[in-house]
Amino acid sequence: MIYGLVVAGGIGQRMGSDIPKQFLKIRHKSIISYTVEVFLDHTDIEKVIVLVPEDWIDFTKDLFMRDFGEMEKLVVTAGGKLRNDTIMNGIKYIKENYVYDDTTTLVTHDAVRPFVTKEIIDRNIEALKEYDSCDTVIPATDTIVESLDHQVISDVPNRANLYQGQTPQSFKMKKFEELYTSLTEDEKNILTDAAKVFVIKGEKVALVEGSTFNIKMTHPSDLDFANSIIGRKNEK
Amino acid sequence: MIYGLVVAGGIGQRMGSDIPKQFLKIRHKSIISYTVEVFLDHTDIEKVIVLVPEDWIDFTKDLFMRDFGEMEKLVVTAGGKLRNDTIMNGIKYIKENYVYDDTTTLVTHDAVRPFVTKEIIDRNIEALKEYDSCDTVIPATDTIVESLDHQVISDVPNRANLYQGQTPQSFKMKKFEELYTSLTEDEKNILTDAAKVFVIKGEKVALVEGSTFNIKMTHPSDLDFANSIIGRKNEK
Repeated sequence: MIYGLVVAGGIGQRMGSDIPKQFLKIRHKSIISYTVEVFLDHTDIEKVIVLVPEDWIDFTKDLFMRDFGEMEKLVVTAGGKLRNDTIMNGIKYIKENYVYDDTTTLVTHDAVRPFVTKEIIDRNIEALKEYDSCDTVIPATDTIVESLDHQVISDVPNRANLYQGQTPQSFKMKKFEELYTSLTEDEKNILTDAAKVFVIKGEKVALVEGSTFNIKMTHPSDLDFANSIIGRKNEK
Repeated sequence: MIYGLVVAGGIGQRMGSDIPKQFLKIRHKSIISYTVEVFLDHTDIEKVIVLVPEDWIDFTKDLFMRDFGEMEKLVVTAGGKLRNDTIMNGIKYIKENYVYDDTTTLVTHDAVRPFVTKEIIDRNIEALKEYDSCDTVIPATDTIVESLDHQVISDVPNRANLYQGQTPQSFKMKKFEELYTSLTEDEKNILTDAAKVFVIKGEKVALVEGSTFNIKMTHPSDLDFANSIIGRKNEK
């Protein structure tokens, strides 16, 4: 069983909007609907569980009813404070409502990465035949510099070994639950990323090839980029 | 004296084009012309020295004559094999043709970052009143992961300390020359970045705030993004 978890916990303000950025529109459709659609269309995904802030559940359900007409494969429920809390809420929902076992797999994805593709999800699923977890990445384009005092550079790590993390991050559900519940509260506050939990606990996280188009909608300039991608798709 | 060095040494193939990517067009103007224009317009910059592959010198001169009508503040000369060779060629040109002293400053910039602004250049110049070198950066947006074997994650460094390097990279000309000529050939092949030379040699490199718009044109998708930025500028 493979479940898609679309994580939209945050209400990031960098977009300069009062609406959580996952609900901003690219050409008359919400960012989150583009994202969810890719998961709904993927035949290996059993259910798509969308985790949003409590106050936005009804809004999101209405939105999906309008965009998809039905909710058979789709669930909207409340996320948590931090990303991994949100994932744990998704796990709780699955355990209460669906079948699961040791091989049950979660493909977790940012709601604000609407340009994920079937192929990227395929590669995640494939990697989990060999590993318990995987992370979607692209080679780092920019030079990465480290500054511990935020004033002068402390290190310039070798770019050839660096990757930009994207999502999906995918893993065996039970394995994540096991690792996460073994963390202290302090560790939980620092390890805001599922892949990080596996790494810290000494587990192997496989790299899966993402795409330069699979951007996270963070800044207003990303909306321009998104518009141009969608425009190009529509021309085809 | 402040000289602008626009570095266009590479003939990167990631754009899927036979033309070096700095010559690709965004709405009827070459990427490199957008970049050079910002430096030409900056009144603190004495001369703008554009370093291109030897075979492209005449082409570039013709292009600039068409785009700018005159070449008074502008020089086109040959770059080197690696980025720092290219910068050293620029230094050689300055020493042979212009006045310089211990305070002479170079603002070096990627030809393929056409969205640099006057303000970013200002901040570079300002930083060099206190430091011998500086690097333009933005806080890392994506999680960065490290993989030494390119198959599984070896580390997830703390994103709060990481920045994405952009350009300009600026520094005192004599200081760079001194540090660079002290490197072994092996070091020269590894330290492909001017800021890295300063860091390795224990010199302080100040961080200067860049911009999310100041992207490097690397992938075909960047052309879409660039088109939308230029489009928005034209609407104003």
